[in-house]
Amino acid sequence: MSAKKEKHSWLSFGMLKPLDWLLLAVPAAFAIRYVPAWKNETLLFIITGIAIIPLAGWMGRATEHLSARAGHGIGGLLNATFGNAAELIIALMALAKGLTGVVKASITGSIIGNILLVVGASMLAGGMRFTRQTFNQTAARISATLLSLAAIGLIIPTIFHLAADRQPGGWSPQAERNLSMAIAAVLFITYIFWLVFTLITHKELFVGQGSGKGGRGGKEDPAWSVSRAITILVLATILVAFMSEFLVGSVESARESLGLTEVFVGVIIVAIIGNAAEHSTAVLFALKDKMDLSLGIAIGSSLQIALFVTPVLLFASYLFGPPMNLEFSLPEIAAVALAVWIVAEISGDGECNWLEGVQLLSVYLIICILFFFLPEPAHVQNGKSGTASRSAISQTNPEPSQPRRSHL
Amino acid sequence: MSAKKEKHSWLSFGMLKPLDWLLLAVPAAFAIRYVPAWKNETLLFIITGIAIIPLAGWMGRATEHLSARAGHGIGGLLNATFGNAAELIIALMALAKGLTGVVKASITGSIIGNILLVVGASMLAGGMRFTRQTFNQTAARISATLLSLAAIGLIIPTIFHLAADRQPGGWSPQAERNLSMAIAAVLFITYIFWLVFTLITHKELFVGQGSGKGGRGGKEDPAWSVSRAITILVLATILVAFMSEFLVGSVESARESLGLTEVFVGVIIVAIIGNAAEHSTAVLFALKDKMDLSLGIAIGSSLQIALFVTPVLLFASYLFGPPMNLEFSLPEIAAVALAVWIVAEISGDGECNWLEGVQLLSVYLIICILFFFLPEPAHVQNGKSGTASRSAISQTNPEPSQPRRSHL
Amino acid sequence: MSAKKEKHSWLSFGMLKPLDWLLLAVPAAFAIRYVPAWKNETLLFIITGIAIIPLAGWMGRATEHLSARAGHGIGGLLNATFGNAAELIIALMALAKGLTGVVKASITGSIIGNILLVVGASMLAGGMRFTRQTFNQTAARISATLLSLAAIGLIIPTIFHLAADRQPGGWSPQAERNLSMAIAAVLFITYIFWLVFTLITHKELFVGQGSGKGGRGGKEDPAWSVSRAITILVLATILVAFMSEFLVGSVESARESLGLTEVFVGVIIVAIIGNAAEHSTAVLFALKDKMDLSLGIAIGSSLQIALFVTPVLLFASYLFGPPMNLEFSLPEIAAVALAVWIVAEISGDGECNWLEGVQLLSVYLIICILFFFLPEPAHVQNGKSGTASRSAISQTNPEPSQPRRSHL
Repeated sequence: MSAKKEKHSWLSFGMLKPLDWLLLAVPAAFAIRYVPAWKNETLLFIITGIAIIPLAGWMGRATEHLSARAGHGIGGLLNATFGNAAELIIALMALAKGLTGVVKASITGSIIGNILLVVGASMLAGGMRFTRQTFNQTAARISATLLSLAAIGLIIPTIFHLAADRQPGGWSPQAERNLSMAIAAVLFITYIFWLVFTLITHKELFVGQGSGKGGRGGKEDPAWSVSRAITILVLATILVAFMSEFLVGSVESARESLGLTEVFVGVIIVAIIGNAAEHSTAVLFALKDKMDLSLGIAIGSSLQIALFVTPVLLFASYLFGPPMNLEFSLPEIAAVALAVWIVAEISGDGECNWLEGVQLLSVYLIICILFFFLPEPAHVQNGKSGTASRSAISQTNPEPSQPRRSHL
Repeated sequence: MSAKKEKHSWLSFGMLKPLDWLLLAVPAAFAIRYVPAWKNETLLFIITGIAIIPLAGWMGRATEHLSARAGHGIGGLLNATFGNAAELIIALMALAKGLTGVVKASITGSIIGNILLVVGASMLAGGMRFTRQTFNQTAARISATLLSLAAIGLIIPTIFHLAADRQPGGWSPQAERNLSMAIAAVLFITYIFWLVFTLITHKELFVGQGSGKGGRGGKEDPAWSVSRAITILVLATILVAFMSEFLVGSVESARESLGLTEVFVGVIIVAIIGNAAEHSTAVLFALKDKMDLSLGIAIGSSLQIALFVTPVLLFASYLFGPPMNLEFSLPEIAAVALAVWIVAEISGDGECNWLEGVQLLSVYLIICILFFFLPEPAHVQNGKSGTASRSAISQTNPEPSQPRRSHL
Repeated sequence: MSAKKEKHSWLSFGMLKPLDWLLLAVPAAFAIRYVPAWKNETLLFIITGIAIIPLAGWMGRATEHLSARAGHGIGGLLNATFGNAAELIIALMALAKGLTGVVKASITGSIIGNILLVVGASMLAGGMRFTRQTFNQTAARISATLLSLAAIGLIIPTIFHLAADRQPGGWSPQAERNLSMAIAAVLFITYIFWLVFTLITHKELFVGQGSGKGGRGGKEDPAWSVSRAITILVLATILVAFMSEFLVGSVESARESLGLTEVFVGVIIVAIIGNAAEHSTAVLFALKDKMDLSLGIAIGSSLQIALFVTPVLLFASYLFGPPMNLEFSLPEIAAVALAVWIVAEISGDGECNWLEGVQLLSVYLIICILFFFLPEPAHVQNGKSGTASRSAISQTNPEPSQPRRSHL
């Protein structure tokens, strides 16, 4: 395809992918939101969810093309920072509305979804085609160890709460927030070191991953001009922001009418929506026996969520919305720890097969079953945010001093 | 040995192994059970325990010979399904009498016993003779990862209980059973995929293990005819059924007179009895530098218990006896998780030495010490099954709605 | 340097290392302790802490030279037994004063400090110079697995307490002590097997580590005579004993004036003081691309603490001071388990880079943050040792029957 043809037809059919038919959901979402006769919270929730999927995909592709243009170093940095921009925007919206429980649940869900669902589906798909697939063992082990570090960072605040609670007056929300802030800083700085490692000192270990982590197959499209990439990125970001605002605004009502708990929505649904575009790319790479790229997308995305997005959200929460902390509920911690454990075992030997994909999907299924059966936390049931302080760890950790504005 | 000679002397001395002298315990057991003057519960417990050991061995050998006749695929399936038939029968008997605590403890004990005691003894024995023994690293890693998946499946129900309990009305026995049923289904389906993997798609990784997993050295006996194998299998099964019925019937009294807790009996004693035959075979293989076969027997048996026998017991419990769930007590979960952790570490590099055998045996010893010191759960002490619901997790998880029929 | 020159100038400047200027703290400590006008508990704490660092270094070098003289077998045994003599002396002093909380905290801190701080600093320092450093994978894996065994041994007593506590009268301090004694015996015996493995049957795996584990660079000094080595060792030991007595005697007051908790002092400060000499040696070896020696010092030291020093302390506690048990607090257990988990992952592939060093240091930092924020346990705050029995697990596990003699 020549550049001439692209100039003539800016949004040529050659650029559209099958997922893009879902873009029809975007105008539909606006309609449902603003036309009083059609206003339906549950439908809005579903439609905006659907709309975000292709938009996230476009944001990713634009980032990828921009990275390719910018060169390896800056490009990798771009990918590493904006690779999860869609999840970040959704989470910021939820944070602004005080839905810290949903924010934490979606962090958990993104991490688990990437390393279990995406990697599992990729290994299974690739394993149907190839008896045995290999990938760079050193890169995989370092990524898995960083995931363990991230899991440790998410476990320690809850251990602090459990231990400090045994002393009267030993635990306070302020102490929890300070501890969380300190840990978030450590995770963030470690992420920067990770970037230095993958983009500068040991980039040869990650060379197969295009212009940096989270390559979304940029090599398969003809290169976009910088202006096109930026325009598409800005447009997509604005639309994702609107869709996120609608989505989060309708979460409460939709949740009740669909009979799902807040944690289930965060862990399963928000996570899948935000990651869907990456999901398909990772699976496609696996089918082409490029497990390095596949794992790079999935595990790299998890690392970005845990070591970059989570600290950024925590810092941002001090600017607007109730300050967040890193205290996750017991099921969330268990899910993350067990997921990281299994993934470290599977990726440790540099090869995989279809059964390992099945194993990861089985663990994901078991975790979904757990979150499906878990009841709604009291503070959400009653609308009384103070009730949660009765129990040391509630289902999702509320900020007891701030009432949830989205409660009825 | 020719087939003619075998026809003449059906149970020739050539077939007897040293363990078989214990078969004398079988008639002794019948005598003690039915002759009023000799009836002694504690003695019955001990004698039937001894009697099951060689019977389980015969069941295994018959299954092995049947598998060899049936060919690799069906043979492997036979081994995989009936390899732990003795444990399954004992557990079904206990289930029928409502002793779900003993059932769960014996599941835990079989898993731990196989991967710590059997593997440890094998590595130690082999390590006395060989400086370094190797085994197929890929097969070992996949097995270890599946064990981790099984451990996750056994941990999640307890996490559900802990988390759901924080909401008034958040937890109910019904929810626990549904969750357990769903997880059991996932484990069972994963087991079927495991069979497809080891018997069909990747069988070359497991080729060294005779006609399938759990090879009991079938190659060393001359092949039995199908009719002989089936006859011996049926006879042995019937006798094991009787022995199990006596054993389980006498567990309560024997336990009290010997001063052992129900959990200790299940975890240590029942597990050792059911696995003794496999134990000796695995150690013998290790002494012959056939660690692949040795590990295949031990770890394969654990996987069968966790992914096949446990779901089958759960499904069966809905047919007779109180419905079971997958909620294990904290010490049981800790024991399984720690055992799986250590085994994954040791088997991950494809080689072993005598010190690794010592390490596994040390962990097993520490776990035995733990279960030795643990007190009897309240509901067993008082005979009031309802008491257990006071605490979120009891020592062994009772089914509060069903009184234990074997209580005095 | 010839032997003649050494005879003439016994403590020649050629033997002094930079750390040795800290030896000036020794006379200073005596002065502060015994001159009434200068007596200041906080200053004494700091000065004795500084004084122990070079003294521990001299003890280590004397042990190393003695080992080199004694030959590989006995030498290795010497190193393995007295390698952590400084920590043992400090802990015995604390035990004699009834400060079991500090003793346990310093055990935890030594283990974590060695495997996270020392290994992390070594990998980081070496990684600045070398892109990739390798080490014997088998030796590293066996050491990591033994660490896991040690962690299991330290976790089980707390699990016993949690589980047994659910029964009224199920838990008793006596049972906890018996369980701890049994487990300590298992750990101690495993340590002896470890010595047989590293010094006799598989010593070729550890040949690079001089005359045994914990080589402190003995090859770089000219060999000392046996009399010199013994004299220096005895002198240094006597001085360390005095310094420890001063240090432990001043811990309570210094702690309060510096605003640190007892656990923080034990985990962070005592551990760093006792290990400082080893720390510098390990980092130096890493800079010379001798990761085997570096890891041997650090991980070997942790193993010695966990499998040798801890059981010895427990046995010794029955001779003087209140009998100790192996029940550690929840944060201590979590810290040890997570540290062992991360180290096993990092050392499993036989190679390392600077980012893995950063990861270990990040985990160490997160653990420090946790212990920094943890409040002082009630029993220490109030001086009432009985208060702690209110909660199943207190911050540090007190011996409720013995009041702390060092309380004001």
